[in-house]
Amino acid sequence: MDIKLNEHFLDVKETYLFSDIAKRVKRFQEENPGREIIRMGIGDVTLPIPASITSAMEEAVKEMASKDSFHGYPPEYGYEFLRSAISGHYKAIGADSVTPESIYVSDGAKSDLGNLPDILGDNPVIIPDPVYPVYVDSNLMNGRKISFVNGTKDNDFLPEPPADTDIEPSVIYICSPNNPTGAVYSYEGLTAWVNFALRTGSLIIFDAAYEAFISEDKPHTIYEIPGAESCAVEISSFSKFAGFTGLRCGWTVVPDTLEAGGIKLSKFWARRQATKFNGVSYITQKGAAASLSGKGFEDCLANIAYYKRNATMLANVFKDRGIYFTGGVNSPYIWLKCPGDMGGWEFFDSILTRFGIVGTPGEGFGENGRGFFRLTAFGSYENTKKACDLFRTL
Amino acid sequence: MDIKLNEHFLDVKETYLFSDIAKRVKRFQEENPGREIIRMGIGDVTLPIPASITSAMEEAVKEMASKDSFHGYPPEYGYEFLRSAISGHYKAIGADSVTPESIYVSDGAKSDLGNLPDILGDNPVIIPDPVYPVYVDSNLMNGRKISFVNGTKDNDFLPEPPADTDIEPSVIYICSPNNPTGAVYSYEGLTAWVNFALRTGSLIIFDAAYEAFISEDKPHTIYEIPGAESCAVEISSFSKFAGFTGLRCGWTVVPDTLEAGGIKLSKFWARRQATKFNGVSYITQKGAAASLSGKGFEDCLANIAYYKRNATMLANVFKDRGIYFTGGVNSPYIWLKCPGDMGGWEFFDSILTRFGIVGTPGEGFGENGRGFFRLTAFGSYENTKKACDLFRTL
Repeated sequence: MDIKLNEHFLDVKETYLFSDIAKRVKRFQEENPGREIIRMGIGDVTLPIPASITSAMEEAVKEMASKDSFHGYPPEYGYEFLRSAISGHYKAIGADSVTPESIYVSDGAKSDLGNLPDILGDNPVIIPDPVYPVYVDSNLMNGRKISFVNGTKDNDFLPEPPADTDIEPSVIYICSPNNPTGAVYSYEGLTAWVNFALRTGSLIIFDAAYEAFISEDKPHTIYEIPGAESCAVEISSFSKFAGFTGLRCGWTVVPDTLEAGGIKLSKFWARRQATKFNGVSYITQKGAAASLSGKGFEDCLANIAYYKRNATMLANVFKDRGIYFTGGVNSPYIWLKCPGDMGGWEFFDSILTRFGIVGTPGEGFGENGRGFFRLTAFGSYENTKKACDLFRTL
Repeated sequence: MDIKLNEHFLDVKETYLFSDIAKRVKRFQEENPGREIIRMGIGDVTLPIPASITSAMEEAVKEMASKDSFHGYPPEYGYEFLRSAISGHYKAIGADSVTPESIYVSDGAKSDLGNLPDILGDNPVIIPDPVYPVYVDSNLMNGRKISFVNGTKDNDFLPEPPADTDIEPSVIYICSPNNPTGAVYSYEGLTAWVNFALRTGSLIIFDAAYEAFISEDKPHTIYEIPGAESCAVEISSFSKFAGFTGLRCGWTVVPDTLEAGGIKLSKFWARRQATKFNGVSYITQKGAAASLSGKGFEDCLANIAYYKRNATMLANVFKDRGIYFTGGVNSPYIWLKCPGDMGGWEFFDSILTRFGIVGTPGEGFGENGRGFFRLTAFGSYENTKKACDLFRTL
């Protein structure tokens, strides 16, 4: 063919992070047959979906089998029952302004993060480093100019807004609680970003996928911050809260108050979704709604508590050993400085050969990830405890 | 905010087609309380999902509730079991070359149609008129230049490739069986398009969403045509075949033999999907696989036969009345010339007031839709029969 392809795709670095990890683990297993592996690199949930939620989904499957209760094309922005339930959840976590009409249900946060740039023009993009790689890659695919704000030990991996006063209106990504660092913005920290966005005419894309892990007094949603409804969209998900990674459901909040050049952002997002998307499975949406009320909600919180107990165990070990880390409190992630100034890959090999523990080198998340390491709390209690006992001997 | 939006979105015409229809129907109902309405504008399936398929989905829901059988993030391009089943279906309909690895499972044909332009550069686009509006809108959103090939009574709504010899390499949309016209390309007709694409270095995006309705000897997939594997991607769906409109599952075939500028198209599509998409619900994929084998497959064919009986009834009426139409044979759609040179809206009002029948004016599908009208076979047998009796009095 002689058609032109989108050459910006060539700017996306192929990542070999997880295949490199898999290769090293495989070699280790071949050289050490029978040796136990403790996987702490998992970014996926492992607990099953609570019966209080699957029973709602079984009911929904049955509805699909009967002519009188069959559901065809779902509403493009989500069923009213789910948009209302999500709006209710926002009220419960302290944001009254999030109406059902401003909530656009989707097949997951990753899709929305990837598709949001569709409706934007050619703006500069500000992304924290270290970072979830999807922010960078989906903007590279559109040929956008990216600048990074640095997360380092000095700011506990919570980068502050640039000090420059002549910043162009930009698109700013913030993930709090952060993947991979587990760091969470305080009210003051997030307010600084909202004020920066308001002052520079910028848009914040706030990724709240790990909101449910927050237990300290920190903002669960950017809409707790005054002014956010004029400068921020928020993307969130049932994946980590309700264990829906395999079921695909998330949402984006686009307040009706967001305007640029006299155009409501919600109008463009609604049009994008109505044209290039056809809604989320009825069964998934019924399950999602069940996760936000009564027994379903309690059961999800119990699962979160299970992962958080793992995180606390890990955090206590590194605290006791005097190893610098972020996360572990309001997050399923622990982000630690590799001891003895090791690089991430060096530490990877070291704990794999000594302990049989697999984690993720910080190098996979950006320049500032060098010499850091991500451990996750999504494993079993038993394995996490074993890992903790081994880390104590570091 | 002072950020720039994607101003190409302003080029997308807001369509009031279905809201206009709804308004007119509402007014009619208010003025004629109690009068029966027969809805023949439905583009959605109405039969429930066969128990042979929902039982597989109930099983899948149960798996999600148990730690040992829980499924987290699905593979980004679909579970192997489903990609193999779809590949097997291609073998059954006469295309041996479609490997499981070339099949990318998604949440629906509309998403893939909307997202495919992501990986393409700024090529001219050739779209038939009348047409499913998503082709036009998703290219307008990217600012692409569109030219139309005309479907008319003269070519039975099966436009042929342009005769010009100096056509730039283009992106060509073909939908067969067509929505809204129900027209289906013959082997010769589709071969002409494949040869045109090969000669001009163009890419065909072939929409096969209505494949299952074909009963005559016509191509079910573009990969029945020699050379297509070097110039065509194919998009298809479980929506109309298995009644999955409410469950969201489709796929795109990107053969490894498709290359432009030395780059494999599959490489870019795989990267797009891995970056901006996170796979399809396990439950949906289990149901989709069940629809392609044994009892599930038979039950789907029985549902298709139900709709086709409706289509045949309708077709026979218009044949007997000497009214020109396409479709009705290999398609759930009947596309008819409004009698007496009426415009589509005029005919709409006429059959609504006389018969209480609701259909869709052809004007909603492009310039060449003027004076035509779409009826669908997705209603019940009883209502379709009533409508036929009324149409006989035209």
